[in-house]
Amino acid sequence: MENAGGANGNQWGFKANEELKTASGITVRGVLNSLLENLNKNDTRPLIPLGHGDPSAFPSFRTASVAVDAIVHSVRSARFNCYSSTVGILPARRAIADYLNRDLPYKLSPDDVYLTLGCTQAIEVILTVLARPGANILLPRPGFPYYEARATHSHLEVRHFDLLPAKGWEVDLDAVEALADENTVALVIINPGNPCGNVYTYQHLQKIAETAKKLGIMVIADEVYDHLAFGNTPFVPMGVFGSIVPVLTLGSISKRWIVPGWRLGWLVTSDPNGILQDSGIVDSIKSFLNISSDPATFIQGAVPQILEKTEEEFFSKITDILRETADICYDRLKEIPCITCPKKPEGSMFVMVKLNYSLLEGINSDMEFALKLAKEESVIVLPGITVGLKDWLRITFAVEPSALEDGLGRMKAFYDRHAKKQ
Amino acid sequence: MENAGGANGNQWGFKANEELKTASGITVRGVLNSLLENLNKNDTRPLIPLGHGDPSAFPSFRTASVAVDAIVHSVRSARFNCYSSTVGILPARRAIADYLNRDLPYKLSPDDVYLTLGCTQAIEVILTVLARPGANILLPRPGFPYYEARATHSHLEVRHFDLLPAKGWEVDLDAVEALADENTVALVIINPGNPCGNVYTYQHLQKIAETAKKLGIMVIADEVYDHLAFGNTPFVPMGVFGSIVPVLTLGSISKRWIVPGWRLGWLVTSDPNGILQDSGIVDSIKSFLNISSDPATFIQGAVPQILEKTEEEFFSKITDILRETADICYDRLKEIPCITCPKKPEGSMFVMVKLNYSLLEGINSDMEFALKLAKEESVIVLPGITVGLKDWLRITFAVEPSALEDGLGRMKAFYDRHAKKQ
Ligand SMILES: Cc1ncc(COP(=O)(O)O)c(C=O)c1O
Ligand SMILES: Cc1ncc(COP(=O)(O)O)c(C=O)c1O
Repeated sequence: MENAGGANGNQWGFKANEELKTASGITVRGVLNSLLENLNKNDTRPLIPLGHGDPSAFPSFRTASVAVDAIVHSVRSARFNCYSSTVGILPARRAIADYLNRDLPYKLSPDDVYLTLGCTQAIEVILTVLARPGANILLPRPGFPYYEARATHSHLEVRHFDLLPAKGWEVDLDAVEALADENTVALVIINPGNPCGNVYTYQHLQKIAETAKKLGIMVIADEVYDHLAFGNTPFVPMGVFGSIVPVLTLGSISKRWIVPGWRLGWLVTSDPNGILQDSGIVDSIKSFLNISSDPATFIQGAVPQILEKTEEEFFSKITDILRETADICYDRLKEIPCITCPKKPEGSMFVMVKLNYSLLEGINSDMEFALKLAKEESVIVLPGITVGLKDWLRITFAVEPSALEDGLGRMKAFYDRHAKKQ
Repeated sequence: MENAGGANGNQWGFKANEELKTASGITVRGVLNSLLENLNKNDTRPLIPLGHGDPSAFPSFRTASVAVDAIVHSVRSARFNCYSSTVGILPARRAIADYLNRDLPYKLSPDDVYLTLGCTQAIEVILTVLARPGANILLPRPGFPYYEARATHSHLEVRHFDLLPAKGWEVDLDAVEALADENTVALVIINPGNPCGNVYTYQHLQKIAETAKKLGIMVIADEVYDHLAFGNTPFVPMGVFGSIVPVLTLGSISKRWIVPGWRLGWLVTSDPNGILQDSGIVDSIKSFLNISSDPATFIQGAVPQILEKTEEEFFSKITDILRETADICYDRLKEIPCITCPKKPEGSMFVMVKLNYSLLEGINSDMEFALKLAKEESVIVLPGITVGLKDWLRITFAVEPSALEDGLGRMKAFYDRHAKKQ
């Protein structure tokens, strides 16, 4: 039969799914793109990217040569040109289990490990699996907006609990208890923290586990910044409390190895009591992976070498430089009166700072601040609204130290120019 | 507040999304896994895998060394450890546009090209984009079940039109016209064909384009087997008819370069009149890519070298061997009375053959045939039911010629043992 009318007054009968725009409207990538469009093309100074967590282009953050060699060896072997199994190839799953087992009081098996396209796909998988009709999930504010985007896409209701700046960005556990009801399925924590740069203590993690147990919900622990802790608080994986509450650990090699473009991550059931298995979550993860894309097989093939052979020296070089840049960042920001930093970062690559508009002339939102800063100084920072906290900025210190000094100097000059005349 | 009761009689309040099982129940991977579980572990002969389209493990199907070198060069350069843009990096998009432009009467621009995780993710993207409430899509039977799985997952209604064995597996265009209504958004064709091994003529493709235009629907052209045509009919890309009807071309390097594990594909708007742009489809594609995973950046970085530098010799070696194995397959299958092959394959890696149970003792379904064959002969073939055609088998001839001879010999022995006594 002939199609009489169609969309847009022509004869074509197709239209796009309108919901996609809503779901994708709130990603970091999207906001950063609009800032980049706002740059002054006549500025001859280099762009200083303090907006996103990808320092891979800087010489000080070059990945370990063993990691590159592992890829070369894997692709040259011709053994990994084939399709992978949907859960990932066994040697890679085993290597990830061993890697995580170093810090756990019980032993994960390779069967607890699912390979994903970075931590990003691990988030996609678990939110899709949990999105049964009526369910809700508790997300941190500020947080990582990909969770909101994916929850929206899957029609999973989002409820936000606050992270408390006055308490070093700890989880507001009273808020968590008040928000949860019988349809709550999980609580998400990001540790070390994006966007706050905090690292949770053993004690706080234990309290989170106990609260989740009391509420009957699982904990999703986003540990994409695992081991990037350079302050006084050591990194403790949430999986340590897996016997209190079932934990889904999400991770990747993106941050610790500074290779976000390699797209290799994992989703791990840190659940010695097998509760996720019994409740059907594990089967559902497998079902969804059956209709999902896999990480390149030869990258999977390189995982054992990457995880086992990277020298301590590489890791300590990276944490040393992050400590140094976090110090620079904290100290130089103190010199900018309109910015307050409630907590010196101890981990990840970011710090959250608050704007005081009363000291500024003609700037009344974090977005406005970021747009003008981009245009006038070719410095990119992320408006807090993107991560759920209006009137704040997220600044990354994971850049070359000289570039960081340069960028923060330009921010100071920007402030001086826009300071309210007393 | 405390969660009183939960799933499974314990205190845990989470359950998985039940729908995922339905969506993933019908994949090729799942069926092949059950056949593999049915193997006789005491059979000392090698397994002959005639079930899936991944010949990468066979020496004759080893990928081009320029392709491997391109990856090595790309990862060693350290220029592609970073995150990619959501649509893919420009040099890769440009290289794919140039590659496709060789066979088109108009010029694609890099902006028409979106990089995806193999053709698989291209399918995911377009079906998600088209899945607005009430919409339906026309899929070929037999076909590639990932389309059904993804449509189900996105609540996009599926309507099947037949491919006609008596007409060399051409599309039943009368059926297409009868199935389409004002909610039909697209028609999918796979050319060269999986599972049928057919290659459509210029004339038939033109008729498909004209029918789609008449119905006001777009054509999704799955050309993952592009250029794998070794019979009398040359491969013609559907994009040639992009000025008649908007075409979405899906492809990848998986098949032509025999590297399915590299996960590099594309979704291309072959639409010189810009109808997909005007109707919002393009924006929706971008929105969805914003919340999707990308191919590894250094693999993207290798794409220009791979597409521009691979020698004709490599491609002709691969089509020569496919021609040879298709011949072997067709000839040896003729010697098995319970099997009929309506059309000699001219492309892709597969052939569809019909079972005649009246010549068999105690075998009454394609699944039973495949299970017994796996158990008794360690030969894997795909039951037709998996691709939508009960009582047929899909057989891959893209394996090492010696292995193919061996496997078809075992199928003959299997028939001899199970033939109905007259
Ligand atoms: C908290 C958090 N989770 C997940 C991701 C995604 O990680 P990947 O690059 O491994 O996909 C990021 C990336 O910035 C992140 O900050
Ligand atoms: C018709 C068809 N489309 C798409 C795909 C997926 O291709 P890729 O490996 O590039 O994801 C396949 C793989 O077998 C296929 O046969």
